[in-house]
Amino acid sequence: MICVLTGGTGGAKFVDGLRQVMPPEEITMIVNTGDDLLWWGLYVSPDIDSITYVLSGLLSRERGWGVKGDTFLCLQAMGQLGEPTWFHTGDRDLAMHLLRSRLLAEGKTLSEATTAISDKLGVKARILPMSDSRVETRVDTPSGELSFEEYFVQRWYQDPVKSVRFAGATDAEAAPGVIDAILSADAVIIAPSNPVTSIGPILAVPGIREALRSARGKVAAVSPIIGNAPVAGPAGILMTAQGLPCSIAGVAKAYEDFLDLLVCDARDARAAETLRKNGLRVQCAQTIMRTSDDRMALARTVLAHTISGLRPEESNQSSADKSARAAADQP
Amino acid sequence: MICVLTGGTGGAKFVDGLRQVMPPEEITMIVNTGDDLLWWGLYVSPDIDSITYVLSGLLSRERGWGVKGDTFLCLQAMGQLGEPTWFHTGDRDLAMHLLRSRLLAEGKTLSEATTAISDKLGVKARILPMSDSRVETRVDTPSGELSFEEYFVQRWYQDPVKSVRFAGATDAEAAPGVIDAILSADAVIIAPSNPVTSIGPILAVPGIREALRSARGKVAAVSPIIGNAPVAGPAGILMTAQGLPCSIAGVAKAYEDFLDLLVCDARDARAAETLRKNGLRVQCAQTIMRTSDDRMALARTVLAHTISGLRPEESNQSSADKSARAAADQP
Repeated sequence: MICVLTGGTGGAKFVDGLRQVMPPEEITMIVNTGDDLLWWGLYVSPDIDSITYVLSGLLSRERGWGVKGDTFLCLQAMGQLGEPTWFHTGDRDLAMHLLRSRLLAEGKTLSEATTAISDKLGVKARILPMSDSRVETRVDTPSGELSFEEYFVQRWYQDPVKSVRFAGATDAEAAPGVIDAILSADAVIIAPSNPVTSIGPILAVPGIREALRSARGKVAAVSPIIGNAPVAGPAGILMTAQGLPCSIAGVAKAYEDFLDLLVCDARDARAAETLRKNGLRVQCAQTIMRTSDDRMALARTVLAHTISGLRPEESNQSSADKSARAAADQP
Repeated sequence: MICVLTGGTGGAKFVDGLRQVMPPEEITMIVNTGDDLLWWGLYVSPDIDSITYVLSGLLSRERGWGVKGDTFLCLQAMGQLGEPTWFHTGDRDLAMHLLRSRLLAEGKTLSEATTAISDKLGVKARILPMSDSRVETRVDTPSGELSFEEYFVQRWYQDPVKSVRFAGATDAEAAPGVIDAILSADAVIIAPSNPVTSIGPILAVPGIREALRSARGKVAAVSPIIGNAPVAGPAGILMTAQGLPCSIAGVAKAYEDFLDLLVCDARDARAAETLRKNGLRVQCAQTIMRTSDDRMALARTVLAHTISGLRPEESNQSSADKSARAAADQP
């Protein structure tokens, strides 16, 4: 069993490769819900949507979000009714939000709704929201505090970022199955998602970070940063705001208390060497995923260095390292 | 000011004519809400939708319901998610249901939501739901009691009908403005809608029938029955189930305590003569509305015989008649 922690866009690309190189039944996805929003009165969970769509083969590869071949007539009509239209929900995509909202209104948890929907779409991997509690990523800017989607989609991440917080995280619980999936996985993979606002909310849920430290399998992360820039999106700005360098060193730092292996781009060979000198295993690979082959190749590389590439003595070493780091982390 | 009591399909056609032959600002619509349903978790009000669409020029004339040129991709996607698809909501049409549902969830009344939406669509006529309370048309059949939309849309009105009731009507109140619109109108027109399940629910709201009896203007109805068959839909079956003959005599009987004028099809000239002998004013006209010209011509005829055709002495006579009938109706 493989456990993947992921956000939406970058994570979905990686997952698209992963599902094609291993049996999807053996993958558990733990998905960021910090971006969830009420949109037109519907509960939208952008990252769960992207992961569900990619695993059911419905994701638009052109856009990287939403349903392939979708149309936007309801959106147009909402605009004519004077409603906001900055968050683009397609007509087919609306079905997901309508069904989820109805299930939640009927008293189902987000986990239950997510399973019900992914089952209907024939998804064989397991998709778990990080939490059934509401945890909201809030981005503090000079214009005030924004939800992540306001910051990212509505305002095109143009605002300077002062800080990021995860409202509700302290009181949140990991969704059923999350902790166990991390602890028992043969490997845990952190997808090439934004460390601050895609993986950060997951790590902010009490118990998840601890589970990563205690995981029996290796924990690997794929860097979403190449050189000093993110592959896409606002990861750089957000990492800087959170005191992390925008580099693979910053990614390593974000995950330092549980990371066994960092997979970074081949262009970061020199920076990788520095990290290795500090004791981290780093594997260079082609991390830009332009084609389906790129996606599968990256997934194979990551798997090769986590499961099949695992040597018993390394495994023991790794566990000892993690315990030591976790112990050093205690107050 | 003209006040129109109406359901969806047949009523919408008539209203389409009316809005073109008089200033829409001078029309108040009182609309059946007995067909309202929760669909995919959204509050759908089929007759208010049709009337709003026809008055904003958005109604699909081909289908007679929904938005012209609409697509049904969300519906397809809902089907793929295993959700029911028998009630056809188009992608553009969904915007109406989404916005209304959100407004209701925020605590607005159905009247307020209806006004907000029709304002956004530039509707100049006033659209009032018959009531802000929930009144549900229930059709009793050998297969059990069905909602109107289940009976009509889902099951194609194939079930034998034992009876019809309006659940919640006893405790309902007419929506703000309804009673006053009836009492103060220069004429009240009952659109060629199903007397049992389109106009029946409106009349079942306490106070509305009494207001029609006391109205200062004439009350005219356009018959949706020609000969012994409805122009469209299940009106005949439903009238029979309620003990009304399926004929213009049945229509006259449904409205007998307040009706001043019945407008029926030219093909019913003989039946009209019989009704006249019994003291009812009956006007024959071309009531089948195939073209826009047909709709306008019928609207003009009805207006001519209610407002401009009204003679003072007739008016007094009419009021005296209505008072006498209302008095005779008291227990």
